[in-house]
Amino acid sequence: MSQRVCFKLRINPEFVDEYKQRHAEVWPEMLTALSESGWTNYSLFVAPDGELIGYLECEDLAKSLELMGRAEVNTLWQASVAKFFVGLDGRAADEAIRPLEEVFHLV
Amino acid sequence: MSQRVCFKLRINPEFVDEYKQRHAEVWPEMLTALSESGWTNYSLFVAPDGELIGYLECEDLAKSLELMGRAEVNTLWQASVAKFFVGLDGRAADEAIRPLEEVFHLV
Repeated sequence: MSQRVCFKLRINPEFVDEYKQRHAEVWPEMLTALSESGWTNYSLFVAPDGELIGYLECEDLAKSLELMGRAEVNTLWQASVAKFFVGLDGRAADEAIRPLEEVFHLV
Repeated sequence: MSQRVCFKLRINPEFVDEYKQRHAEVWPEMLTALSESGWTNYSLFVAPDGELIGYLECEDLAKSLELMGRAEVNTLWQASVAKFFVGLDGRAADEAIRPLEEVFHLV
């Protein structure tokens, strides 16, 4: 059974436009790495105040995160987007993912 | 083309447990009304601080909201859950849905 995962992170509101621009042209190698690591139906939503909400479906989040953690392109990508985030305490954004509890689902 | 919709609302943190319990047993008529109104792959996620995040897919959000707005069971449901929410300014929760901007999607 696949998992539905929702997480939230925070972007510096000053960088919201630049964050959006970067995510309109994600490196193809990064997209491939995500797909190969089992990330599907993956969306990022941004609120004007900088709150970032991610939603994805995967078979096993721990495994998908581990596979992305090993992908060289992800290390480069995370370094290139690190400046957008606040509150990561030195972690990469993907290391800071804490899934929220799903309390309802309708197929 | 279908729309992916993400929205956030806020629950009184004191009521998070009760909110979860209610959403483990949503009325069958309410589920039917949502499905008939075009709500699919609909999940609700709750953070410990009471932030509520909704994700759904539909053909046309405005139309799906309008159809739910006309469903009698929805009026009853919204009245029965109104006490959980904060910041609705007298609106029903579904009237307060403001979709966030999707800035990235990977199939």
